[in-house]
Amino acid sequence: MTRELAAAVVTLAAAEFPRLELAFHEQCFVAEGHFAGSDAVRLAAFLECANDPGSDAVWFAKGGYGSNRLLPGAIDGLGSAARDKSYLGYSDTGFLLGALYRAGIGRPVHASMPTDIRRTDGAVAVRRSLAWLAGDASGLEPGGDTHPVAAFNLTTLAMLAGTRFMPDLAGHVLLVEECAEHLYAIDRLFFHITALLPGLAGLRLGETTDVPANDRPFGADAEEIARDWCGRSGIPWLGRAAIGHSAGNHVVPFGLAPSARGA
Amino acid sequence: MTRELAAAVVTLAAAEFPRLELAFHEQCFVAEGHFAGSDAVRLAAFLECANDPGSDAVWFAKGGYGSNRLLPGAIDGLGSAARDKSYLGYSDTGFLLGALYRAGIGRPVHASMPTDIRRTDGAVAVRRSLAWLAGDASGLEPGGDTHPVAAFNLTTLAMLAGTRFMPDLAGHVLLVEECAEHLYAIDRLFFHITALLPGLAGLRLGETTDVPANDRPFGADAEEIARDWCGRSGIPWLGRAAIGHSAGNHVVPFGLAPSARGA
Repeated sequence: MTRELAAAVVTLAAAEFPRLELAFHEQCFVAEGHFAGSDAVRLAAFLECANDPGSDAVWFAKGGYGSNRLLPGAIDGLGSAARDKSYLGYSDTGFLLGALYRAGIGRPVHASMPTDIRRTDGAVAVRRSLAWLAGDASGLEPGGDTHPVAAFNLTTLAMLAGTRFMPDLAGHVLLVEECAEHLYAIDRLFFHITALLPGLAGLRLGETTDVPANDRPFGADAEEIARDWCGRSGIPWLGRAAIGHSAGNHVVPFGLAPSARGA
Repeated sequence: MTRELAAAVVTLAAAEFPRLELAFHEQCFVAEGHFAGSDAVRLAAFLECANDPGSDAVWFAKGGYGSNRLLPGAIDGLGSAARDKSYLGYSDTGFLLGALYRAGIGRPVHASMPTDIRRTDGAVAVRRSLAWLAGDASGLEPGGDTHPVAAFNLTTLAMLAGTRFMPDLAGHVLLVEECAEHLYAIDRLFFHITALLPGLAGLRLGETTDVPANDRPFGADAEEIARDWCGRSGIPWLGRAAIGHSAGNHVVPFGLAPSARGA
C-alpha cells in the first residue's frame, strides 16, 4: 500500500477513535513483483506483529493474493502473545483468518482493511473496522445468526478447503462474497465448497461485485446460483449477508456472537 | 456448437479416417443461457450416448463450463455398454473424465474436441483425436511416462479435488494445463491441488495460454510457479507436457500406457 493511504487511515482514526493507536509495519510499503515483499519478508512482518505483546490486534493492510504462501510458517511461528489478539482482514487474507481459526489462535475477524479507504465511500467501511477495534459493535454484520459464523471470499475459501489449514465449519453459518469472477466461475466455486464443507448450519451470500460480462448470459444470477447449490447439497439457505468488496462490507468476528452466547 | 463446425469435422474425418463413423447428438446444437441445453437435456444426451451399445466412444463436443452439474447422475445412470467405451475431451469435461476414472468406467482420454477445429491449426489437434479413435497412436502425448497418467485443466482439477468424484491419483504422473487465468490464480490453484493430491509420482506442466495481463508483473512464470509448488510439496517435477488449449494439445489416455505395461 502507499504511505498516502496509510496516512489517510491514521488521520481518520485520530479524528474519530483517539484512543486507538495505529502502527503500520514498514513491510506494508514494500513492493516486489505481485507482492508486498518476498514470502520471507511478509512472513517475518506478520510474525513480528502477531507475536508483539504490546499490541491488541493485527489489521491486515490489503488483500490481493499471497497470504496462503506464508503457510505453514505463519501458524507454526506464533507464540503466546499471538493468542490474545484479534486478526482483521478479508479477501485473500481469509487464508490466514481460516488457518488461525483452525489452530484456535486469537480471534479472526472478517472486516474491511486500510486500503479499502480508496474505495467509493471507503471511509465508511474502514470506520467499521476501527470502531470494532475501539470496542464499538455498531459495524457488525447485522445477520443476527445464533450459530457460530465464518465469512470468506468464495475463491479464497475454495482454495483453502480440503487443505490442512481449513477449519471445520460444521455447525457454522457461512457467509461468502466474491469479486471480479464470472458467474460460471461462481457456479463452479459453489459446486466445490458445497461438496467440501459438510454440516454447515446455513449459508448467506454477500455481495458479488465487478462480475465480468461474458459473451453470453449465464442464465441465473449469483443468488439463484447460491440457492441452487444449497438446494443440491442440503445446506439451509439463509438469505443475503452485508459483506463484500465495497463500502457495504461489515464486521464478522468468527465464532459465536456474544449476543448468541446468552451474554 | 454450430452445425457448420460439426460438418467441418465430419468432412475431415471422412477424408482421412473413412472407417470412423461420427454422429453428433442433436443436443450439441442446443443453446440455453451458458449451456448447450438444461442440465436435464445434457445429462439425457450424455447417458444416451454412453449407454448406446452400438458405439465405441463418446467424444465430448466442447468444454466451456457445466459438466460438473451433471454429477452424480452422469455416473449413476451408466449401464454396462458405458463400460466398454472411451470418453474423449478436456478442459471442463475433465469433471466427467475424472469421475469416470474414479468409478472405473470406460477409458477416459484427455484429447482435443470437435470445436477445436475453429482454432488456428485446429485441424491438427482434431486429427490427433480422430487418429486415436481410429487406432493410430501417432497423436499420443510424447512424455513416455512409465507411471499411470492423468491430465486435467488446472481449474477443473482444483474444483474436482476433494469431492466424491475425484479419483485417487496416488502413484500417477499428473499433467495439467490452463487457459485464460492470471498467474496469481495459477499460483493459488497449485497451492490447492498440491495440498489435496497426496502421493503423486510426478507433475508435468502443459501450456498456459491466454494469461491475462495484470496491473503488475507476478514475478515468476507458469513453469517457475509449478516447480515452486512441486518443491514445497515434495512432488517430483518432471518437466513440460504437450497439452493445452491449442493445436499443440495431444492425446492422453488415463492410466498406464500400453508401452509401460510391457506390451
